[in-house]
Parts: sequence; structure tokens; C-alpha cells
Amino acid sequence: MVKQYDVAVIGGGPAGTAMAYGLVAKGKAVVIIEADLWGGTCPNRGCDPKKILLSAVEAKQASAHLQGHGLTGVPTVDWPALMATKRGYTDGINDGTLHGLTGAGIDTLHGEAYFQADGQLTVDGEVVTATDYVIATGQRPAILPIKGHEYFQTSTDFLDLDTMPKRVTFVGGGYAGFELATIVRAAGAEVHLIHHNDRPLKAFDAKMVQALMANLTAQGVVFDLGVDLTAITKAADGLHLQAPDFDLTTDLVISAAGRLPNADHLGLENVGVTFNRHGVQVNGHLQTANPHIYAIGDVSDTPVPKLTPVAGYEARYLVDELTDSSAAISYPVVPTQVYAAPKLAQVGLSAELAAQQPDRYTINDLDMTAWFSYYRVQAPQALAKVMVEKATGLVVGASVLSDIADEMINYLTLLIQQKITLPALQKLVLAYPTPASDLQYLY
Amino acid sequence: MVKQYDVAVIGGGPAGTAMAYGLVAKGKAVVIIEADLWGGTCPNRGCDPKKILLSAVEAKQASAHLQGHGLTGVPTVDWPALMATKRGYTDGINDGTLHGLTGAGIDTLHGEAYFQADGQLTVDGEVVTATDYVIATGQRPAILPIKGHEYFQTSTDFLDLDTMPKRVTFVGGGYAGFELATIVRAAGAEVHLIHHNDRPLKAFDAKMVQALMANLTAQGVVFDLGVDLTAITKAADGLHLQAPDFDLTTDLVISAAGRLPNADHLGLENVGVTFNRHGVQVNGHLQTANPHIYAIGDVSDTPVPKLTPVAGYEARYLVDELTDSSAAISYPVVPTQVYAAPKLAQVGLSAELAAQQPDRYTINDLDMTAWFSYYRVQAPQALAKVMVEKATGLVVGASVLSDIADEMINYLTLLIQQKITLPALQKLVLAYPTPASDLQYLY
Repeated sequence: MVKQYDVAVIGGGPAGTAMAYGLVAKGKAVVIIEADLWGGTCPNRGCDPKKILLSAVEAKQASAHLQGHGLTGVPTVDWPALMATKRGYTDGINDGTLHGLTGAGIDTLHGEAYFQADGQLTVDGEVVTATDYVIATGQRPAILPIKGHEYFQTSTDFLDLDTMPKRVTFVGGGYAGFELATIVRAAGAEVHLIHHNDRPLKAFDAKMVQALMANLTAQGVVFDLGVDLTAITKAADGLHLQAPDFDLTTDLVISAAGRLPNADHLGLENVGVTFNRHGVQVNGHLQTANPHIYAIGDVSDTPVPKLTPVAGYEARYLVDELTDSSAAISYPVVPTQVYAAPKLAQVGLSAELAAQQPDRYTINDLDMTAWFSYYRVQAPQALAKVMVEKATGLVVGASVLSDIADEMINYLTLLIQQKITLPALQKLVLAYPTPASDLQYLY
Repeated sequence: MVKQYDVAVIGGGPAGTAMAYGLVAKGKAVVIIEADLWGGTCPNRGCDPKKILLSAVEAKQASAHLQGHGLTGVPTVDWPALMATKRGYTDGINDGTLHGLTGAGIDTLHGEAYFQADGQLTVDGEVVTATDYVIATGQRPAILPIKGHEYFQTSTDFLDLDTMPKRVTFVGGGYAGFELATIVRAAGAEVHLIHHNDRPLKAFDAKMVQALMANLTAQGVVFDLGVDLTAITKAADGLHLQAPDFDLTTDLVISAAGRLPNADHLGLENVGVTFNRHGVQVNGHLQTANPHIYAIGDVSDTPVPKLTPVAGYEARYLVDELTDSSAAISYPVVPTQVYAAPKLAQVGLSAELAAQQPDRYTINDLDMTAWFSYYRVQAPQALAKVMVEKATGLVVGASVLSDIADEMINYLTLLIQQKITLPALQKLVLAYPTPASDLQYLY
């Protein structure tokens, strides 16, 4: 006899597991289905392992910045040991996630989910019946469809790399390219980042991106901008990356040209669910064109960045929606960050948009490098743009480039979301001297 | 002709300068008087230089923690270079502060302020006449009045030490002793911390203090507890610190036995202003027994910790009070921290008090060491106690011991002050993975 579930969740990553935990806590009968690693991209081959690798870069740079200013000696990256530390975390994710789910009373199935017809979901051929379905299958790295694309590796491969080759090249100037190129360089390898135009990280403030590139260039990262790669060929001396008037030899080439929704193998065409390269199309209730099928997390086409905390936020919304709520989802401001070294982060209204309404917004364009917080660690670069609404005195957006941009952007997100004006901030006492002490100078 | 001021501010530190800037911005005629260095203790010989020296410790430890886990090589502290970096900051404070004050239209006087009689303030003998007076003279290190006390040096001397001796001893287990002992140890010297009973850092959670001491002991700091020092004598092999059944030889001994208010040389007895070892006595309006004389910052006896941001808070209050307000001052929760390595920080209700009302409060006693935020940097210790009010779900207090306790305590202070419950927190999207991502697990 086939078990009847209230909800079948397809995808055991941050979105799907948050969904399953939330539903089971509300008394729903839930099954969750995963075709690959339990835990999904973020903890297995995304945000978490990447930031473990970054730890070595951060510590190395902290020492490097203080050379001649209080410390002598800069540590070197021991790649195999660093990878072992990463694996010490990631190796336990699959079993730990599965254990947590089953322990909470959530049924789990490992296999490929496929909609045969409306109400007919199968997992490796076995039928799973539920009242509602939630697609939370995430994304995968896109591979540039050029000649020799079979030589591409992806961020997934990089994050499990046993040995650091002498020469590494990233193709695509998005988050992953910048973040992983920073790590490669700190580990001592030659690194190139190829981008098809002259504006990588296009969602970020142009001036800040320029400053980040200048910093990474000084560290030895080579940016090959305006290079539209046409082919990869293999030769005795390595892989040749080719474009008009361009030929670069490398040992490892990573396709970092964005990510694609995992929506094409689910049989969505059999159940009236539509998707494009941005994801599964949903309405304001995260509902697809099929009223019993929803999509959340990276696989859904929503107007916000595809990030782990957004997945959690959508899951919590949809748990309420499937139990007792009915309003359309509304998103808070979402901070985004590039975990390079330094880090680039932004939240809320951009300087570009604020500049279009000079009567309404002030843009505080700040070089903080000489400020105490950065002087004390001899950080070579600390920039911020903070957008303040004139009429209310509220911070409405910010862009930060520094070694602690992630910390600053979280404070700024709190200032924005909690609507904390400068006088309200000055009614608080925060620890001094800390980066939070600087917030009062950002208005 | 003698210039008549609206307000004379005595003391050019964080409290006094914030007061002067605030008043002049409201159109008041202000004179500020400083007997020593403009800028006061915090930037010249307190929080700021101390945290510059700590930068080298933090960076060194960040590398040390990752040995065998991704980095090879630990930098050593170059004391003269570190001191030069400190001086690169502190050397500019006096002139920079003075320049800022005069540029804002504030009159400045350098010299000893003394109340000859009511309405008769002199500065090195010269009469200064004002409607109101604000005492903001801060504190100075206390010297234990034992035999041989002339051999004591203070935190002021330590923070300008040209050469690190082989053996350094701190007498007094408060903030300064812990913080500076940590720095000495990281710089490679032998360090002892002598405390008269077995409960140093008595304002902090006992278990957390024990954990911090265990950590520092593992780093090589020697704690001599229950030692009531009676004498210091000088011998050929160094200074002998003596107590019953105790004789320690050291090269440098720092009195870190608290601080005393700079209230005893001001002629307060001539104007009816009273003070004790906690400071100048004030009412809820920061007004002394003399209605035209106020006291703010470290020199005033108020129910809150004597910290730089509190000084600024009191200055802002008193600016309003002297211009257009009249309510008594009310303080927000005040985070306090020991900038050792790791750092110990706390805010709001203590675990000790919360434990007395188990029906009302939950105490979350958390070992976070295995959490991602600490695993990724291989931090050896990360503990927290978080006090939550059961009826409201509000965080009301916290104690944190970790390398990033200052960052966490600022977030926790914001949660307390803004009354952010767990459901409200989950309506925010914060950068992931960051220490702020962990906040949801602290409730």
C-alpha cells in the first residue's frame, strides 16, 4: 500500500530540509527526496566549504598585513591539510542531514524524482503520493557550451581538489570566480580570471568592483577582461584557452559562468510547470502554474538573490502558506557578498539608483582605510558607500569593500530593516572599539 | 577682560570632547580644559592602543589555530614594530584632538583646573568664568599602596613600552591585567597575573572566567590566585614580589588593581561637590551637589560600567539636559568585554541572576566550538550563555567567550535593545555563513 503524504519535498538542501522540518513540526506527514548528497549545495559544495578554504586566506593575509607593523613571518597555505579540514566538515554533512531528518520523523527517499503526470510523482520508478509538492532542487554550475567544454571542471570539483596545480583559470567573473581565484592565489598558484566583457560582478557597485579587482591584481590575480572564449584544446604543455587574439595555457580550467536550475529532469512538462534559465516560474505564493506544486530556494525564479538564507526564508513562508497563511510573500532587504579577500558586500538601494534621485538620497562615499578599525590591523583597503534617505535619515542601502565587509553588511542590514536612525543608534551602547562603533560615522 | 562661557568642560577625553562638540553645535560658548593629553585615556593610553597591540595577537593566533589544518608557519611578534604601529596612531591624537576642537570653535585651555570657590574656576591660576561646569576628568590607574610600591609601573607605561622584558607580572585580575597579560604572552615573555582572591574578573560569569583562565593558562599565562601582595623589593636578579609563602622574581611589575577617579585635585571641597573612590557623586541628571556643576564619563559615580561609549552617551544626554531636556538619564544595556584572546563579553542580565528566577528565564548554556563559525577557523574555544525571558521570547542577557565575542555581543545587544524575538529575527535575511547566521541558534 502506498503511503499518502501531505507534502512531498523534492530536494534535500537548505530549502527542502527547512521546509520538511517546518512542516513536520506542524503535524504534517512529509517525505523528502534527494538524488545526490543530503544537505545540498551549500554545506557540501557551496558556501560552507568555500568559507572554510577562505579561513586560511584570511589568516594568512592578517599576518601579511602586519609585516613590519608588529608581526614577522607569513604562513603558507598547506593545501592538502586545508582540504582535509574542509572534508572534516563536509564528510559528515550527508549522513548528519539524513540522520536529522529521520530523527524528526520525516520520511526520506534517495533517488531521482520525476513527475509522470499530475499527482504521479515517482522516485526511481516508485510512486510517491502527496497532496502538495515542493520543488527545492537548487541549481548546478553551468558549463560554457564551447568547443572543448569537456575539459571544464566546476566549482564542485575545485572544492574537492586534492592537489593545487601550478596554473588555474576561472572562466566567468561572478561570485564563484572571484572567490575561488582569491583562494588559488593565496595557495600560491598562478591564477587567471577570464570574463567576456569588462564588467564582472555586474550586480555590484562598479567602483567597488574596480577597487576589488585592483586589490586582487596586486595580489597576483590576472584578470583577462573582454575575452570571449571560443575553444579549449589540450596540448603537451597544458590546456589552451582560446579566443580571438588570446591563447592562455593552464592546468585547470573552471567554468564559473553562472548556475542553471535543476528543473530539466523533473518531468515538469508533464504537470504544467514552466521554467526558464532563471528557474521554475512561481507566483507571489511560490506556487507554480500547477496549484499543487510549489518551488522554493535556488530553483525558483524569484526577484531576490539565490542565497541560503533566502531559501530558509522562503521555506518558512511556505510552511505557513501550506498550513494557515495566505498573503503573498514579501522579502526583506537581502545582503549579498563576494567572499574574496577583501570581501565585497552590498544591501538595499544601490548607489547607482540613489544617484538618480539626488533630492531624495545622500550617498556617503567613504574611504575608511585610515579609520581605527582598519589601521589597527593594517588593512590595505576599506571602502563604503552608504545611501541615506534625506527625509527620514534612514539608511536604505550600502556597499562595503573590506576584510570585514560581511560583518559590516550585517549591521547595515539590521539598521535598514529595523529602521534605526542615527539618533536611535546613539541611544544604544555598543562595544568599543569595534566595527560596530563605526556605524555612527556611516550616516 | 575675562571671557564668559556658557559651559566650561574640565577634561579633554571622550566624555569632555563629546560634550564640547555637542554644546557648540547648539550655539553655546564653550571652553574645554585639559591638564594632560588631549583625547584622554581611551585613544592615548587605553582602549585604542590596547586593541592595536591585540591585533598582532589575534593574527598570530589565527595562524596558530590553523597549523596542521591549512597553514604552515606562525608569525612572531615584533614588539618594537608593533609599538611603532601603536605610536603611529597615538602620536597624532593630542594634536588632532586639539585641532578638531579649535576648528569647531571651541576654546581650549591646557593646564590644571581648580575650583577656588563657587563660580571661581582657575586653570593654572587663570580665572575661567562659566554658567555651568562639567567635570569629565576620567580615572587613573590605582597603585597598590604596599611596601616598594615605587617599583610599580602602570598600564600607561606598558602601552608605551620600548622593549619587552623577559618576565612581566600584573598585579590585579581586572580587565587590564587579563588584556595586557595576553599581549605579553603572545610577544613571547613569561607572564604572571597575581590576584588577591580566587575570583578575578568578578563582574563576569564565573564559569566563563574559569574557561578563559584555562585557555590563557594553556597559552602559558601563569595565574597566581589568592596572593595578597605585601612588598616589592629590588635585588640583583630582578624585582621580588612578596606575599606569605610567595616570592616571585620579575623584571616588570604592573599595578592593574583598578582605577581611581581624577577628582582629588580639583578643589571640589571648595564648591560642595562630593566624591568617593567610585567617582564624583551625581543625581539622575548627572548633576553634583552643586547645581551648576555636573560630572560625566569615567569620573562620575553612575550605575553603569565606565566605558568610552557610555561617556559619549552621557555627554549626549547632558548636552540635551543643558539645552532643552529635563528627564533623568536612563541607560540602555551596556555590553562589557575583556579584550584578551579569546575575548570575554557580556551584556544585560547575568546567568547568576537569571538562575534565581527559573520560572521566568531560560539559560541557554552553549558550547559552540564545533559550530561552523568556529570550526572553519579551528578556534579552540567558543562558549555562550544566553538568557531568554520565557513569557516574551526576548533575549535579556548574554555572556560570550570566543575570538569574536565582541562581534557577537554587539549583535546580542542589538537583539536585546531592539527587542528582536526569534520569529522577528527570522524575518530578516543576514549574510550567510557569518557569525550573525548563528544568532537564531542562541534563543
